Amino acid sequence: MKTKRFFLPESQIPTQWYNLMADMKNKPLPMLNPATKEPIKAEDLYPIFAEEVSKQEVNMTDTWIDIPEEVREKYKIYRSTPLVRAYELEKALDTPAHIYFKNESVSPVGSHKLNTALAQAYYCKQEGLTNITTETGAGQWGTALAFAAKTFGLELAVYMVKVSYRQKPYRRSLMQTWGAEVIASPSMSTKAGRKIITDNPTYQGSLGTAISEAIELAMQTPNCKYTLGSVLNHVALHQSVIGLEAEKQMEMAGEYPDIIIGCFGGGSNFAGISFPFMRHKILDGKNTRFIAAEPASCPKLTRGVFQYDLGDEAGYTPLIPMFTLGHAFAPANIHAGGLRYHGAGSIVSQLLKDDLMEAMDIPQLESFEAGVLFARTEGIVPAPESSHAIASAIREAKKAKEEGVQKTILFNLSGHGLVDMTAYDSYFDGDLRNYELSAEEIAKTTSNLEQIIK
Amino acid sequence: MKTKRFFLPESQIPTQWYNLMADMKNKPLPMLNPATKEPIKAEDLYPIFAEEVSKQEVNMTDTWIDIPEEVREKYKIYRSTPLVRAYELEKALDTPAHIYFKNESVSPVGSHKLNTALAQAYYCKQEGLTNITTETGAGQWGTALAFAAKTFGLELAVYMVKVSYRQKPYRRSLMQTWGAEVIASPSMSTKAGRKIITDNPTYQGSLGTAISEAIELAMQTPNCKYTLGSVLNHVALHQSVIGLEAEKQMEMAGEYPDIIIGCFGGGSNFAGISFPFMRHKILDGKNTRFIAAEPASCPKLTRGVFQYDLGDEAGYTPLIPMFTLGHAFAPANIHAGGLRYHGAGSIVSQLLKDDLMEAMDIPQLESFEAGVLFARTEGIVPAPESSHAIASAIREAKKAKEEGVQKTILFNLSGHGLVDMTAYDSYFDGDLRNYELSAEEIAKTTSNLEQIIK
Repeated sequence: MKTKRFFLPESQIPTQWYNLMADMKNKPLPMLNPATKEPIKAEDLYPIFAEEVSKQEVNMTDTWIDIPEEVREKYKIYRSTPLVRAYELEKALDTPAHIYFKNESVSPVGSHKLNTALAQAYYCKQEGLTNITTETGAGQWGTALAFAAKTFGLELAVYMVKVSYRQKPYRRSLMQTWGAEVIASPSMSTKAGRKIITDNPTYQGSLGTAISEAIELAMQTPNCKYTLGSVLNHVALHQSVIGLEAEKQMEMAGEYPDIIIGCFGGGSNFAGISFPFMRHKILDGKNTRFIAAEPASCPKLTRGVFQYDLGDEAGYTPLIPMFTLGHAFAPANIHAGGLRYHGAGSIVSQLLKDDLMEAMDIPQLESFEAGVLFARTEGIVPAPESSHAIASAIREAKKAKEEGVQKTILFNLSGHGLVDMTAYDSYFDGDLRNYELSAEEIAKTTSNLEQIIK
Repeated sequence: MKTKRFFLPESQIPTQWYNLMADMKNKPLPMLNPATKEPIKAEDLYPIFAEEVSKQEVNMTDTWIDIPEEVREKYKIYRSTPLVRAYELEKALDTPAHIYFKNESVSPVGSHKLNTALAQAYYCKQEGLTNITTETGAGQWGTALAFAAKTFGLELAVYMVKVSYRQKPYRRSLMQTWGAEVIASPSMSTKAGRKIITDNPTYQGSLGTAISEAIELAMQTPNCKYTLGSVLNHVALHQSVIGLEAEKQMEMAGEYPDIIIGCFGGGSNFAGISFPFMRHKILDGKNTRFIAAEPASCPKLTRGVFQYDLGDEAGYTPLIPMFTLGHAFAPANIHAGGLRYHGAGSIVSQLLKDDLMEAMDIPQLESFEAGVLFARTEGIVPAPESSHAIASAIREAKKAKEEGVQKTILFNLSGHGLVDMTAYDSYFDGDLRNYELSAEEIAKTTSNLEQIIK
């Protein structure tokens, strides 16, 4: 009998996260203070983020960072996650490729977001904080932080983009079940929110606005800080637990991936599956291909520019060196809400610039077609975000067939779609479409950015 | 570091199901033909059920029955399911009890129902059938069969109780994603449905009606048979894979359960976790307590009568010897839809009569309180059905604390609640209540049954 799923014993759950920045030859450019244009230091971030993650954010020297024992204990609720050989998908594609996926959807919140939520909540608790805030768009990050906050005894307020608050009631309900307060954004509870509501009472919200509200509330609340679920370096650090496990599990399977794929929004799940393997590309000359699968409607990596840009619309964040479509870019309303972000984190942006990785854009309909095929073969209904990685893996598996070569493909299944079934309904009803972006549209939101790297 | 989750290697997934009937000293009474009152033989069931499961249904002699290799291959998608030590729940209860749960919610359909769905779909396919039918109430069984049918290449039609079809759109959507046709019941597609719609155009459906429609469609469609997800002996047989795994996993944990708990609707998940351990009570004199946790609003085991009764409202099924509230009993509209069934399977009914097990009724509000505590400690949002088992485990853990004794409690987490979040919303909104049944109400639907055992 062929083995389908590979698990690690609990004793082999990683004890350290891997910090790719320490091994990169070209380091990511530093974040800058928008006013002074000076590089950001850890202390500059303390007013907003927990001190420990602020230090991690700018740490370019320590390759390995200890996972606190208390966080590792919580990881045991769902880790190790299985590495799965997708035999049924291979059969359906009639491909010589071997397809593996790392199944992060088994976490109780349904996605990989819990890996960093637990770490961030733990550090906030350690620092003596009592409250934390965040924003959520599609809702995966907010649900993860809701459980993490509860398990470490923190009160959490989540600003949820208003349109998601209405369209994804199950996500809101999950956060409340874990004890979080959920506020539809824009709201009357912050200055930023009040201004927007006053100017435009029917505005349905955006991630940028929700970030502004969450930061503002954190700054004005005693013993309270803000947390973010993607883009930043410390988030990528925490997510490295995915790839570190996968490395050992691929060894159990007796293979090494030729191609590694993650879907791409801010970069957290892509970083998680990739960076530990990227280490071997940088240090040992491994010839692995890394593919970030982004939506064609939000193509920052394939069509954006590499520039310093803001992380949010309102301009509360530092300037980040990123491949970006501009912080004013308004992505089409695709169902993969977690991928609707204008920019990529600084590490990934540097890797892409240095040709250490590549990017692929996937039209919405192709992503759903891939998701449905995956559900009907491997049984798991994927999150619309994760379906982009599946679509990319399918493209590569078909290419392997055409070329008659046996490739080993590994992708990250970042989450399941059980609370996103309205998206599948729309797909089956024929209500979804692809979105084509013209060069002019992209120029509109990128041309006014200060271009620092040509 | 203490181990939290216990897994079996794939090589140790059971190769045989366990048939408790072969070991029972008092065998279950036979099912009877409603017209002739003659005991049902396997052949009598062939027009409705696959031949292989019909044989299993009446097999009281073979203790072990081989799991087909093809079914075992599919089990590997999610089996072994983890046995989990609920350290965080124990801490919250400050109990000396050791609480374990078998986590069947990790199946891609979210519940234990897939264990028998795969077996039944496989046997139908082997028999050369092309189509199958079933009904679903809460939707867990329908979703499981949808994936099972797809993976073995069968077309499936599911009659979904109309009120659930409206209230649980995600369940409908899941079934469609796996390729099943879903029809709200009562429908115009069957004689039984047409009659009810004509008499009462606004009728919201019931499980009994949906069963009648599904059986009728199967009987009138070439190459088509009917399948059922609970109550029957062959379903309990297939579910024994849960307890067989748990037995080995409890050994890994170095403990043997004093108390084993499953929530109770038709009995499939209770049978699954219990019967392999019941074997040791019957054969080896183990002193284990077995508790079926049923809703107080549908108390067939604690307040029903032991009589021959029909499995459905319309009377298409054989007479089954069961603890029952009467097939005309209309349970209150609690959110644990999977537990709203009037009768218990014949094996469990015999075990209860022989005092080999006990039953406990749980009010709705207590079940939700338990479910929320579980979500906030162990991270998993349980299905409202499973919360009855959790509530029962909590009662026993509190008792252990009062008595100052260390008990080892094992319960089955039959499913997660991610597609039942409206139920949690209602709970938090204060819209749920308990239902008290008077003796008169129970007498109304039980007194007219022909009482054959006093």
